[in-house]
Amino acid sequence: MRGVVLHAPGDVRVDHREDPTIIEPTDALLHVSATCVCGSDLWPYRGIETVDGPSPMGHEYVGVVEAVGDEVTTISPGQFVVGSFFASDNCCANCRAGYQSACRHRVPMGSLGTQAEWVRVPLADGTLVPTPRVPPDDLVPSLLAASDVLGTGWFGALAAHAGPGRTVVVVGDGAVGLLAVLAARQLGAERIVAMSRHEPRQRLATEFGATDIVTERGDEGVARIRELTDGLGAHSVVEAVGTQESMMQAIRSTRPGGHVGYVGVAHGVTLPGEELFYSHVHLHGGPAPVRRFLPQLIDLILDRVIDPGRVFDLTLPLDEAAEGYRAMDERRAIKALLVP
Amino acid sequence: MRGVVLHAPGDVRVDHREDPTIIEPTDALLHVSATCVCGSDLWPYRGIETVDGPSPMGHEYVGVVEAVGDEVTTISPGQFVVGSFFASDNCCANCRAGYQSACRHRVPMGSLGTQAEWVRVPLADGTLVPTPRVPPDDLVPSLLAASDVLGTGWFGALAAHAGPGRTVVVVGDGAVGLLAVLAARQLGAERIVAMSRHEPRQRLATEFGATDIVTERGDEGVARIRELTDGLGAHSVVEAVGTQESMMQAIRSTRPGGHVGYVGVAHGVTLPGEELFYSHVHLHGGPAPVRRFLPQLIDLILDRVIDPGRVFDLTLPLDEAAEGYRAMDERRAIKALLVP
Repeated sequence: MRGVVLHAPGDVRVDHREDPTIIEPTDALLHVSATCVCGSDLWPYRGIETVDGPSPMGHEYVGVVEAVGDEVTTISPGQFVVGSFFASDNCCANCRAGYQSACRHRVPMGSLGTQAEWVRVPLADGTLVPTPRVPPDDLVPSLLAASDVLGTGWFGALAAHAGPGRTVVVVGDGAVGLLAVLAARQLGAERIVAMSRHEPRQRLATEFGATDIVTERGDEGVARIRELTDGLGAHSVVEAVGTQESMMQAIRSTRPGGHVGYVGVAHGVTLPGEELFYSHVHLHGGPAPVRRFLPQLIDLILDRVIDPGRVFDLTLPLDEAAEGYRAMDERRAIKALLVP
Repeated sequence: MRGVVLHAPGDVRVDHREDPTIIEPTDALLHVSATCVCGSDLWPYRGIETVDGPSPMGHEYVGVVEAVGDEVTTISPGQFVVGSFFASDNCCANCRAGYQSACRHRVPMGSLGTQAEWVRVPLADGTLVPTPRVPPDDLVPSLLAASDVLGTGWFGALAAHAGPGRTVVVVGDGAVGLLAVLAARQLGAERIVAMSRHEPRQRLATEFGATDIVTERGDEGVARIRELTDGLGAHSVVEAVGTQESMMQAIRSTRPGGHVGYVGVAHGVTLPGEELFYSHVHLHGGPAPVRRFLPQLIDLILDRVIDPGRVFDLTLPLDEAAEGYRAMDERRAIKALLVP
């Protein structure tokens, strides 16, 4: 089959890869309907994360089940399914606590590479959520967004305790940040501040529910948030970047007793204990347990209450994946959808 | 008046200090009934925190009101009162949110020095909680504990979401850690693990409600907690030390989705962002908003439901304060009560 492989920083190619098959009796084999490039794929693409030899890429996917292993009971061939970027059994203690991304048997889908025509999904019963019927084409991008960026933004907003009466700040205007804005709106936040200096992203943030746009960053961004909140800081801040600057900006923008939800994959971040201690903020985050939210998010999409697929402002055939990476790296595109 | 003054690391003396008076119309002047030495007083005593010239010491106190300023309306001379280590107005946005230790007008009582015969308490209406009548002498130590260590342990347990069905681990066997055990018991925790290798403290922890004692520390301590929790880690961990080792031990002892409540005053702590990200823990803590809990804690003490004053295993006249510092520094005493 054809699949995206990263050979070296900046060098992604669509190569011939071996066709996946059912290996474990709990596997499903999917024909990928749509996949995409993630902001986190840019870390190795930019050489900030090192990879060991050619690596299959991609962890987001929706598709149609082709075959299942002997022990799979709830998923069957022909179903259209959505899964998260971690395969999870959905029944261990961590899964039952709602942390499927910390499943004791989790498998990172990135290690299997979903930017491809076919993909093997481990722990199919726990991982995959079928839609009631094969959805119309125009809903596929939104369902694909649910596979990671929507669920991640949703987790960020929940971890930040976004809700009625609260001012929510979102640091980061990538797909996750924009969808954290959408999540905060769905969760009933009173005021939603998107931090962005990029006009098309500002516009989408506003359409997703942002009430304010702040263009300043770092200390100036913090000062602007304090101005907007009577000097107190926001109740809820979603961090959706993963750098030292963005984490500190998030913590410093939060009032005492407020909540920081951080979902940007941390790279080179060290938090100063003393400052954190005296900040009185709550911190929670990590790789989002997207599986927890999938049933609810799929319903909201199928009912056309939310339209998270709008983060895809570039659609390419899988063979042009390299252009998708380039466009996102250069911030010409928010997020690139790839059609195998 | 006589009052404790730190002149240099290891050198505390009872000096003649100027008698305090009402300065602001919102002040109260207290005759101190009892005060004590805090674990956090040991940081400057040990030279880990530097002080600039001779510094009055102490921030814990109970006493009888001698006089109040013209604007004080709820506190009156003759009342026995308990206050926290931050004076707070109890009406600003941070106070109303329950973070009186982040009051916008807070005054650290340590800057005024409560290890003395008299003390001026700013923002008396917001800061002080009177008891219904002058309490019997045997309850004074417990009421004094409410001024800081009980309220701090209580906040740690709440921040760690101690409660029914949960396994709570307490890192640190000082007065705060021991009272976090007591708090976890009051909050209904199912299992309470005290980490201590010091027999008298183990015994008090058990009497306060600990169900398990773990003597290992660091990585071995983490491994032991994982053994006790089916490999998952605890639901709730209270950090009551403030060092790098204890913070990492607390984070690593917590299961995904679990809660770390950290109340040990952080010294030289830096948290690795990547590890924190993948840990999936909740972090909350800081200087405890003791004022939030005072009415409830005072009731529990006056009703003799809890006996937190048992952390005082050394009582000295104020004039012998230096011996109190030495005994705590050498871990011969858990906590020293000083009688002016």
